[in-house]
Amino acid sequence: MIYFDNSATTAIDPTVLKTYTDVTTKIMGNPSSLHNLGTVAGRMLEASRKQIADLLGKSASEIYFTSGGTEGDNWILKGVAFEKRVYGNHIIVSSVEHPAVKASAEWLATQGFEVDFAPVDSHGFVKLDALAALIKKETILVSVMAVNNEIGTIEPIHQIADLLADKPTISFHVDAVQAVGKLDVSEFLPERVDFATFSAHKFHGPRGVGFVYIKKGKKLQPLLTGGGQENNQRSTTENVAGIAATAKALRMVLTDSEAKLTKLAAMKEVLLTALAEYSDVVVFSQRDNFVPHIITFGLKGVRGEVLVHGFEAHEIYISTTSACSSKVGLASSTLTAMHVSPKLATSAVRISLDETNNMVEIEQFLTIFKQLHAKFQKIQ
Amino acid sequence: MIYFDNSATTAIDPTVLKTYTDVTTKIMGNPSSLHNLGTVAGRMLEASRKQIADLLGKSASEIYFTSGGTEGDNWILKGVAFEKRVYGNHIIVSSVEHPAVKASAEWLATQGFEVDFAPVDSHGFVKLDALAALIKKETILVSVMAVNNEIGTIEPIHQIADLLADKPTISFHVDAVQAVGKLDVSEFLPERVDFATFSAHKFHGPRGVGFVYIKKGKKLQPLLTGGGQENNQRSTTENVAGIAATAKALRMVLTDSEAKLTKLAAMKEVLLTALAEYSDVVVFSQRDNFVPHIITFGLKGVRGEVLVHGFEAHEIYISTTSACSSKVGLASSTLTAMHVSPKLATSAVRISLDETNNMVEIEQFLTIFKQLHAKFQKIQ
Repeated sequence: MIYFDNSATTAIDPTVLKTYTDVTTKIMGNPSSLHNLGTVAGRMLEASRKQIADLLGKSASEIYFTSGGTEGDNWILKGVAFEKRVYGNHIIVSSVEHPAVKASAEWLATQGFEVDFAPVDSHGFVKLDALAALIKKETILVSVMAVNNEIGTIEPIHQIADLLADKPTISFHVDAVQAVGKLDVSEFLPERVDFATFSAHKFHGPRGVGFVYIKKGKKLQPLLTGGGQENNQRSTTENVAGIAATAKALRMVLTDSEAKLTKLAAMKEVLLTALAEYSDVVVFSQRDNFVPHIITFGLKGVRGEVLVHGFEAHEIYISTTSACSSKVGLASSTLTAMHVSPKLATSAVRISLDETNNMVEIEQFLTIFKQLHAKFQKIQ
Repeated sequence: MIYFDNSATTAIDPTVLKTYTDVTTKIMGNPSSLHNLGTVAGRMLEASRKQIADLLGKSASEIYFTSGGTEGDNWILKGVAFEKRVYGNHIIVSSVEHPAVKASAEWLATQGFEVDFAPVDSHGFVKLDALAALIKKETILVSVMAVNNEIGTIEPIHQIADLLADKPTISFHVDAVQAVGKLDVSEFLPERVDFATFSAHKFHGPRGVGFVYIKKGKKLQPLLTGGGQENNQRSTTENVAGIAATAKALRMVLTDSEAKLTKLAAMKEVLLTALAEYSDVVVFSQRDNFVPHIITFGLKGVRGEVLVHGFEAHEIYISTTSACSSKVGLASSTLTAMHVSPKLATSAVRISLDETNNMVEIEQFLTIFKQLHAKFQKIQ
């Protein structure tokens, strides 16, 4: 089996799973409990928070745990909107955001907020001029992802930070779900970023755990109210084992990241070079300002799902862009935002690599692609 | 160690943990993925949903997964309120609800909804007449818990169902978090209930997983929007391993439940009989219409936290009523709603048993209590 769908989800790392099972077995208390079992659980929780904060170069008090990327995005979009409504009701999100951000913004639009979608250029990068033109005095929040999940663009977070430098009343949120381990933290978490979203299962952590970065002093309303956990910002009994496993996974993914990125870049280069040989292949993921692990392309005239199933027959697992939209059969919303024609957009497939993949797998993939390509040419 | 704090959290069952590790290791796909790994993950997800539905006597399409009880309560309260706002803006929740319900209602009050808290009698039971008197034509939702987490009252769900029988436009939500395995499902899920909340870690399942029951045809707005998972009702990549483990835990807790309840009732009886011997002990948890596993009492003149720490020194773990409020040092909100004096309310401690406890532990507990009682009498 060759698994090239790591942007959909990754396999949990065995040592991360061991952390989960060890903690869930040995540290069973509820951190809110007054007795020693609660104290021990609370210590593990806070040690995990500190470890994550240290890895991101932030303070432990700026890290809040969630159930994943979707909750993080929903919380920040809705929480900031409701908190700052008295100051303004205008929100800007990029037109290539993950559905968790887009749908949250759309829901806010039903609640009286005004939402603008910042356009991208033909390569998928947010247009800075267009974004700047959308900002007005009612703007309270700008949300732009660090790395696009469908084609791998590295969005210009630093340039947007510069744009917002003299606009301190506008909150800046970065969905960093696809960036962890693939970009240096400094690239997607400059000081100007107020909020950021993370998800553990994208970096070999457990499913159902994520965290958000909330810059010191920045306020938002809770999405989950109740027992007052997480400094009264996110109530629910803490998933201590899942959180400890997430801290472990983050440490592991950020270890030797330079060597891992070099390996990923080499695999991407081989893929891009080989795919360039096919005149009927359109590659959407470029070399510059794209992450090394996502390669999205279309074979003209062949629907993406057909190609996915063609590879599947050889136990090679790729995706039709995002997992979320794949079953609905919708064209990639990122490609649509780039004004790629609907026909070409529905041909798109995404390879998403990870440091556990290797060059032999790349070669096998290319061999099978050659066969599939020849077969589809005959059919046409 | 004697663990009598099972209403705060339970230890994960080893076979449940094995289900978690097996599934997370062997079924790594994202159920939204188009390829076979996604299909296999989706099948496990749906099999788990079916198993849970069967155990509750409901349809699989009526079960939706969440991150726990707090998310379930928040989702239902807020989701129903926003969905039905066009029909009315009045919500009734009981005055002894879990903070996840109360705080959600309070947040809704900041958003223009009118919230009434239905009073309870001196034993902690919702007053049916008073509840009936609060209902008006703008009422869209009534939320009453099945079992109170602080003193163990079994709330009159069937009688409230009868009260609402001829009011089909009012949604009826039951927080069933503390009821699972302690009451027969028919007692807290009569047909009139539209929504119910469940949490896995209260019945030896994993932390960070829960589910809600949403009766067929009943609508609410999603709390987590995004990729459209859970029939577009609750987006986020599904925690398949946690969900499979939850189904397993539910099956286990509902197996031989009659024998388990008999065992719990016997332990409670011994505790109640022994505590009745102390003239300065006030027991809040009665025999009739109270669950068998929660025994809450106060030793007059001794703060609950002092008693908790007194037991802790003997490795016996109990609680000052709910875990959520324990660290904040607040008096039990349930006792406050029952008009128990603040002084007596702050003396309250909660024993919460479970089928893994035994009579030897009860006797040890009572021996230590005798010692502590004598010690505190001397101090006073």
